[in-house]
Amino acid sequence: MSWGTELWDQYDNLSFHTQKGIDFLERYGHFIRDRCLIEMEYAGKLRRLVKNYQPKKKEEEEYQYSTCKAFKAMLCEVNDLAGQHEVIAENLQSDVIREINYLVKDIKEERKKLLQDSAKYVAMINNQVASLERSRKNYEKAFKEAERALDNFQRADADLNLSRAEVEKQRMNMAIKNQHCEESKNEYANQLQKTNELQSQHYKALMPEVFRQLQELDEKRIRNVRHFMAHSADVERNVFPIINKCLDGIINAANQVNEKQDTILVIERYKSGFEPPGDFPFDDLSRGGESTPLVLPGSGNTYVSSGVGAHRSESMTVKGTMSAGKLKKRVGLFAIFSSNKLMDVCSSVKNNLSSSG
Amino acid sequence: MSWGTELWDQYDNLSFHTQKGIDFLERYGHFIRDRCLIEMEYAGKLRRLVKNYQPKKKEEEEYQYSTCKAFKAMLCEVNDLAGQHEVIAENLQSDVIREINYLVKDIKEERKKLLQDSAKYVAMINNQVASLERSRKNYEKAFKEAERALDNFQRADADLNLSRAEVEKQRMNMAIKNQHCEESKNEYANQLQKTNELQSQHYKALMPEVFRQLQELDEKRIRNVRHFMAHSADVERNVFPIINKCLDGIINAANQVNEKQDTILVIERYKSGFEPPGDFPFDDLSRGGESTPLVLPGSGNTYVSSGVGAHRSESMTVKGTMSAGKLKKRVGLFAIFSSNKLMDVCSSVKNNLSSSG
Repeated sequence: MSWGTELWDQYDNLSFHTQKGIDFLERYGHFIRDRCLIEMEYAGKLRRLVKNYQPKKKEEEEYQYSTCKAFKAMLCEVNDLAGQHEVIAENLQSDVIREINYLVKDIKEERKKLLQDSAKYVAMINNQVASLERSRKNYEKAFKEAERALDNFQRADADLNLSRAEVEKQRMNMAIKNQHCEESKNEYANQLQKTNELQSQHYKALMPEVFRQLQELDEKRIRNVRHFMAHSADVERNVFPIINKCLDGIINAANQVNEKQDTILVIERYKSGFEPPGDFPFDDLSRGGESTPLVLPGSGNTYVSSGVGAHRSESMTVKGTMSAGKLKKRVGLFAIFSSNKLMDVCSSVKNNLSSSG
Repeated sequence: MSWGTELWDQYDNLSFHTQKGIDFLERYGHFIRDRCLIEMEYAGKLRRLVKNYQPKKKEEEEYQYSTCKAFKAMLCEVNDLAGQHEVIAENLQSDVIREINYLVKDIKEERKKLLQDSAKYVAMINNQVASLERSRKNYEKAFKEAERALDNFQRADADLNLSRAEVEKQRMNMAIKNQHCEESKNEYANQLQKTNELQSQHYKALMPEVFRQLQELDEKRIRNVRHFMAHSADVERNVFPIINKCLDGIINAANQVNEKQDTILVIERYKSGFEPPGDFPFDDLSRGGESTPLVLPGSGNTYVSSGVGAHRSESMTVKGTMSAGKLKKRVGLFAIFSSNKLMDVCSSVKNNLSSSG
């Protein structure tokens, strides 16, 4: 079934239908364009998220721990994931939107050309029919004049009062009019033949060919819609393996998180290397103030020191070996420490002790 | 290696470090929360896109064509795809964000309790050391008084001018002071024993236990970061099969697009069922205006009609059989038609023809 034969009289509907088809294709293109924008926006938001959560310069020290390293690695993967949505948008742009734009332009031009052709054919047949009508009227007029000339001759021939010359004039006139009528009839016949030939060609060849090509154009459009729709799904699916790898990357990053390793790092970072203070010695004044360890029943402690004061000053020396920076940090930490109310109590106890010691 | 033994003197750093750990966990929670928002926004945008491109009521007639049907089916799939991103957001919310919030609350409380315990232990040892210092000073004072009493007694005993009663008084005083010094010494020894016992317990049991529990708490936090990170990737991956099905759905929809079927639908929709006009007949006036087909050499056409005018009126009847609605539509289509300049020429030819016929 072809538009050329079945829809020979549906020029306007075909013009309308093919325009609707182009509108649909453009609308589909706009849909993909809007989808692209959403993918780009999504990717942009993911990238901004990653940027917002990048470790700050001052936090670099923390990024030796496995949790922080994993978080940083995960941010990289989310960034790559964002990139894959940009790939979707770029491929939709190059493989679908651009191709749709080309196709719409082609189809519009082709449709316009075909409609112009068919308008030309309609004008041709209409002109021919007008010529036919003119030649038929000429024939009608010549026929009437020939009839009148015959009538005049017959009347003249019957009128015995008229001269032979007059009768001969009417016969001549009748012959001329008859001749003219014959010529007009032939011209009319010629025009009729031309018109019928052209009309037959118009309805059987020219217009069917235009409509056949319009149908082909519409089928081309529809085939391409199928292609674009399937391809846009493929574009989306094609990034799956890489998105999967990004997710594998996040799982790998997570598996690098090691709580034992991290708490050992804390030891390495903060360990002073000092031993906890030993027992206070017994300050036996009866032996001239010589400090002796307090030997208690069952206690194996043999620590000897030069007295409580000496012990205190030793722990001061310990503090003195710390770097200035470390001391500064400790001050900072004490500040945090002191924000706790209970800690205040503890701290004041400490101060009392050091002032009384 | 344990924080309890290795970091016995790093209370402040451990307080600082565990706070940093909680900050990290909260920050990770905020990251997932922000990611959720992006997923929800993406899903919302896809849903709005689908809504914007839903066929309008007035376009329903077009939706009999396979391209339009496929487009509608594809919109459904994109809507389902949006739903899967909502599933990601919902599962991140319930499985990760909520769990992180619970964990942060637990760890904060546990850490606070441990720091309070350790502050209590520090206060205890400091109080004990202060008591020790007081008892040592009492002992020192009593020792000096005993020394002075001994001195006084010896001086009195050597002075032969003094009465025995006076000497006896000094001996008594010396004995009392000695007794008091012995008592103070014992008290000092007791306090020293208590202090050393408490200090040993403090550094070997109480504080190590607090630090060990802080380490356990930190390890629990780190283990959970691993778990949350891996789980959030799984949440994302879990929707893949359904997203894949959505894409399959789009490909299936595309494959339903059938150009041949659609152009046949156009024929069914617009076909008038009329035959193209036949030849114009020859209006032979010499046979009294009887219309005869123009018999041309080699033409098999035997069409007979009652003249050009009759033929025209027949084609009018043909038009008369069309429904009013269809005629109205055709008027509308002619309006489109006449917007084309070339069509104007063609149309005016047509009008001339019908006025002259």
